[in-house]
Amino acid sequence: MIKSEFHFIGICGSLRKDSYNKKLLDVAFLSVPEGVTTEIVDISAMPLYNEDVLVEGIPESVLQMKAQLTSADAIVIASPEYNYSIPGLLKNAIDWASRPPKDSPFPGKPLAILGASTGLLGTVRMQYHLRQVAVALDMYPLNRPEVMIAKAQDKFDGDGKLTDEFAIEIIRKQMSALLSLTKKLQN
Amino acid sequence: MIKSEFHFIGICGSLRKDSYNKKLLDVAFLSVPEGVTTEIVDISAMPLYNEDVLVEGIPESVLQMKAQLTSADAIVIASPEYNYSIPGLLKNAIDWASRPPKDSPFPGKPLAILGASTGLLGTVRMQYHLRQVAVALDMYPLNRPEVMIAKAQDKFDGDGKLTDEFAIEIIRKQMSALLSLTKKLQN
Amino acid sequence: MIKSEFHFIGICGSLRKDSYNKKLLDVAFLSVPEGVTTEIVDISAMPLYNEDVLVEGIPESVLQMKAQLTSADAIVIASPEYNYSIPGLLKNAIDWASRPPKDSPFPGKPLAILGASTGLLGTVRMQYHLRQVAVALDMYPLNRPEVMIAKAQDKFDGDGKLTDEFAIEIIRKQMSALLSLTKKLQN
Amino acid sequence: MIKSEFHFIGICGSLRKDSYNKKLLDVAFLSVPEGVTTEIVDISAMPLYNEDVLVEGIPESVLQMKAQLTSADAIVIASPEYNYSIPGLLKNAIDWASRPPKDSPFPGKPLAILGASTGLLGTVRMQYHLRQVAVALDMYPLNRPEVMIAKAQDKFDGDGKLTDEFAIEIIRKQMSALLSLTKKLQN
Repeated sequence: MIKSEFHFIGICGSLRKDSYNKKLLDVAFLSVPEGVTTEIVDISAMPLYNEDVLVEGIPESVLQMKAQLTSADAIVIASPEYNYSIPGLLKNAIDWASRPPKDSPFPGKPLAILGASTGLLGTVRMQYHLRQVAVALDMYPLNRPEVMIAKAQDKFDGDGKLTDEFAIEIIRKQMSALLSLTKKLQN
Repeated sequence: MIKSEFHFIGICGSLRKDSYNKKLLDVAFLSVPEGVTTEIVDISAMPLYNEDVLVEGIPESVLQMKAQLTSADAIVIASPEYNYSIPGLLKNAIDWASRPPKDSPFPGKPLAILGASTGLLGTVRMQYHLRQVAVALDMYPLNRPEVMIAKAQDKFDGDGKLTDEFAIEIIRKQMSALLSLTKKLQN
Repeated sequence: MIKSEFHFIGICGSLRKDSYNKKLLDVAFLSVPEGVTTEIVDISAMPLYNEDVLVEGIPESVLQMKAQLTSADAIVIASPEYNYSIPGLLKNAIDWASRPPKDSPFPGKPLAILGASTGLLGTVRMQYHLRQVAVALDMYPLNRPEVMIAKAQDKFDGDGKLTDEFAIEIIRKQMSALLSLTKKLQN
Repeated sequence: MIKSEFHFIGICGSLRKDSYNKKLLDVAFLSVPEGVTTEIVDISAMPLYNEDVLVEGIPESVLQMKAQLTSADAIVIASPEYNYSIPGLLKNAIDWASRPPKDSPFPGKPLAILGASTGLLGTVRMQYHLRQVAVALDMYPLNRPEVMIAKAQDKFDGDGKLTDEFAIEIIRKQMSALLSLTKKLQN
């Protein structure tokens, strides 16, 4: 039996207040298909991962994040690229959430990746590193469409609103494709 | 003119007190060729990277780390692999150190990578992601020898001493090769 | 409606007569679940890819391979690692098969990857490059179990028979997991 | 003692007659600094790599390519991206050239990578896979500048001449940087 309601949880890889990727995540979650509820996880208060701490007792901020992620049918990550890879702060949150393995909220869940950059490559190198991490997490990243927003400063207006029609449309299609994959994988 | 003294700075990608990778870094720094001084950077107090904070004023722990890294002739990173990639906490330190670009301590410097894991693959996936990051940082990672210590629990004794002869030898060779590359690149 | 019969097509990334990866593919196909038929594609006669030739008329060996791949419900690739990546000859076959995009046999299909090497890393670097190629092909590589056979010379006997119990078992599990994923994705 | 003459050898990853990457290689080799001679290797007649054949006797086309590559002070590769990675035909040539290891022409040599594509990403995924292969080959890829020509159809005129000023300039800078790195590594 397929459920009629699905929950997508979003994570943003930037802590910057005016982050383009935060806005991208908002656009994505405003364009989800009917029947999908959404929620964004706050990773700004996460300590640095330390396995010793894991033994002593998992920090409250981590437990809170894991409870949210556990309730997700699918995960959506919007992130900048830092130094040709995943931002450390995003990876740190993923590292916490994945441990210990028996309590990982990720296995079997589909993943959609979005990224915006002011450069020409639209976070492509971050996205392929994140796809490799997804194998470790046993998640299934969506193949199509890939959302890589280059020259973000030209695609958002002064109020931080995404105005690029093509970008808006592929984000909408990505959320729809994510729901389809979610349904298949839950079969 | 080639200098007669060289300074290697080490970074460990694990905060665990009994980390195998901390021990690996110690072994490496005990086996550097004559004329090389060493120093290990502490990244445990680093906040999560936030570009807004960068504008407001760089945190003291970051400034301290950058000053140390700037004094390095070569960088040595020993790190575990988390989720088939670079530990978030290590990448976070690198992200801080690299910004703003004009003050990055990394360009042109050689890099040696070591990794120990209790699994069979010895951090290979972390190492290749780190090599891609090194392109962004404009660093030159050493090609040979690659130091990937698998089944670390069998290669360190109860007191945390590395007992594997082969491992000890390639680490010594790696430090020697790092000095050679450092000299070439400084020409 | 889910079909009751499924067809797995195998590709081997080595042309060597006594290739461990050929044997791995044989082991895999002997351990498929009931209801699964298998077939191995021959890529030894493929010319080097040339887009001009594509326009002039696709070579017979390519058309033959594409017809076979089109009939597959899932693809199984067993391959060595050459120079820390995918063997050129295997990638060349994939490049041919994928063009033109409208006739690609790959989109939406699940993929299982196996690899054997005489070294310690069991083709891990080939496998992660192949996973990135799978995104281009719109294929879904299985996450678990990963089949990386290190020190292959110790795990096959003199007659080329795989004798390592653990390897035999994870290969069987991988084929079973591939069938499960195939069924889900065909829903 | 540093030599006063240097030889750069180029390899193109496309066999297409009107390949943008062939033209890119021509532009690069027309803009090398004084004292540099150039030569382009033909990889169109290479058979598919087969280790058995290696034992029986290396094909003439391979021996010819290896002799040329051995004479190089630095290697320049201009290539399209096929299926988010290295073209199989290019990787096949590299696989041949690298075997047996004792006769590999690559160790210690610097490498410059260029790529042109009609898409938006300018071969970035090919380039990072090639950088990983370079570790296996013990080559030192140049970090800066990276040459990724997106929307190639807009940057070459009807006669196949590169007209984009920015592209022309970074290619010239790349060849100059390659010579600097070559000199350093030969010290």
